[in-house]
Amino acid sequence: MTDLPWWQQPCRPLDATAEAAACARQAQLTKPAGSLGLLETLAVRLAAQQGREKPQLDNVWIAIFAGDHGVVAEGVSAYPQAVTVQMLQNFLAGGAAISVLARQQNAHLEVHNLGTVAPANLPGVAEHGVAAGTANFIQGPAMTTAQCDAALAVGRDVAVRAAAEGCQLLIGGEMGIGNTTAASALACALLGVQLEQLVGAGTGLDSDGVRRKRDAIQRALALHAGERDAYDWLQRLGGLEIAALVGAYLGCAQQGITVLVDGVICTAAALIAVRLNPGVADWLLFAHSGAEPGHAPLLAALDAQPILQLGMRLGEGSGAGVALPLLRLACALHGEMATFAEAAVAGKLA
Amino acid sequence: MTDLPWWQQPCRPLDATAEAAACARQAQLTKPAGSLGLLETLAVRLAAQQGREKPQLDNVWIAIFAGDHGVVAEGVSAYPQAVTVQMLQNFLAGGAAISVLARQQNAHLEVHNLGTVAPANLPGVAEHGVAAGTANFIQGPAMTTAQCDAALAVGRDVAVRAAAEGCQLLIGGEMGIGNTTAASALACALLGVQLEQLVGAGTGLDSDGVRRKRDAIQRALALHAGERDAYDWLQRLGGLEIAALVGAYLGCAQQGITVLVDGVICTAAALIAVRLNPGVADWLLFAHSGAEPGHAPLLAALDAQPILQLGMRLGEGSGAGVALPLLRLACALHGEMATFAEAAVAGKLA
Repeated sequence: MTDLPWWQQPCRPLDATAEAAACARQAQLTKPAGSLGLLETLAVRLAAQQGREKPQLDNVWIAIFAGDHGVVAEGVSAYPQAVTVQMLQNFLAGGAAISVLARQQNAHLEVHNLGTVAPANLPGVAEHGVAAGTANFIQGPAMTTAQCDAALAVGRDVAVRAAAEGCQLLIGGEMGIGNTTAASALACALLGVQLEQLVGAGTGLDSDGVRRKRDAIQRALALHAGERDAYDWLQRLGGLEIAALVGAYLGCAQQGITVLVDGVICTAAALIAVRLNPGVADWLLFAHSGAEPGHAPLLAALDAQPILQLGMRLGEGSGAGVALPLLRLACALHGEMATFAEAAVAGKLA
Repeated sequence: MTDLPWWQQPCRPLDATAEAAACARQAQLTKPAGSLGLLETLAVRLAAQQGREKPQLDNVWIAIFAGDHGVVAEGVSAYPQAVTVQMLQNFLAGGAAISVLARQQNAHLEVHNLGTVAPANLPGVAEHGVAAGTANFIQGPAMTTAQCDAALAVGRDVAVRAAAEGCQLLIGGEMGIGNTTAASALACALLGVQLEQLVGAGTGLDSDGVRRKRDAIQRALALHAGERDAYDWLQRLGGLEIAALVGAYLGCAQQGITVLVDGVICTAAALIAVRLNPGVADWLLFAHSGAEPGHAPLLAALDAQPILQLGMRLGEGSGAGVALPLLRLACALHGEMATFAEAAVAGKLA
């Protein structure tokens, strides 16, 4: 085992005993079997992950990972690159969507800057300084292997610390102007799907912008073409914050923390994590199917059953933040509803 | 106006000024325009309903209406009729799904028995005693007009009292063994759609049960065939609890209370309310698209955009209870996010 990189070390297995107990409990609750739909599936999965019949989600962490993208030089974003750092400030000041969602739901929120073009220099932001943004991947790999490894380790370290502090569910968020371009390129490479199906408007490109984005991705795919594994694609086409998400998901699965995956960028990271270590899949829940066209094929590749379909496309972890109350209600219904026997309600007719 | 029945009196109009202010605010928040998807639409609609730029949902009521159904004699339910009253006890004891959802979200919960075969005799249940259940609609009208009017008035009175106590949003729930049969029959009659498309397993019928349910509905549709208005269909094929829901929705729209519509039975009631008084439509939000096959066509007839698709089919108002946190988060995001100017974040590139 010691020869393997850390990310190939085993993930924690699900608890089959707790899963069976949760299934048996669901069958006794005062409702027709199956009538709570996906909420039943989620409660049982959380039981298997937490190793107890009645799972809880009191301790929820949201970790936002940020990084800049060299490919922004190709005109692939509707917003200037300075917005990456400006939004970090907004996350901490409480004015961003994810800040509101964290505050409303009493979730722990932390912000990690993997590498923006200039350091954020903001109190409260963990500065990791892996690189001054990625390199432009239409000219070469986005990251060196040392940078990619360092970014993966930042994510893993968050998971290790979260586990030590009793975290039961982690939401990874991301901020990085240009990162739907990286995620779309990764989706094309990982899924072997045509470019046209996967590239969308991101934060709001006009048709010229979408064309520039497609051109940049096409050039990158031509430059990096070859038989490559998930690590290689991450290093060549990914982003620092995407690598950190991959590391966080791997670390959560090894530490036994449920992951609630957000949008297209997080789902690309989730697919890479599962390709690097298939045991990660047991620990992933999927918050939503978003509006960016690359999201649905990535979800399908992960056999994901997303909780919400609200047409969201904001990132930051916001879709996961919006799905969180449904997971908590799934736990409350599972744990607090009366059984037919407790309530003296007659069961189904023979 | 005084010659019209109460349910045709005008509904409160939406507030166009507040709606415009909410739209303008959405455009200034620190996110790409439209990136919160349906949550943006919902916040703006709530602003128009509440007449203020930043809507709130602090005061939420859940009113459950119960009644028995004569058509149960035809073997159309998987559960014995005694379950209607047993579940009323469970609602009050806190063990039902809707009880858990109300408690978790600090919503006011009340239970109205329009008419079970025998009175519930439960402290905490409002007994209205409109009838000892409906008549079997394969032999004649389910209700007399006096019974139908009385049941409508029960719902309206709840809305009037809710308005007086500052209620901002009402969830109507229902309990009545056999009531998906009534809702399916109403859907066939109101939509003019084929029976096969609309009749499902309800709480869990086997194939023989579904066949009996289809047969009963077919006989009822043949017996009551004719050019009829929504009131007539309600009286002939509806249920006491369904009429109360119709009255509650009408009353809410007249009083200016937002309605969050639950599953197939509530959506049938919503369509009747809109047919009786088109102004009701402005006040309806739709919680989810459920698993019962009649639900989707009813939603389509109302041009509804349901919030959730979780495969739920429990009733009681439970789908609306699960959607409630998303409406509250929509309000929080709308009200608490920073604007680009407040956060000093750069806007979109020209």
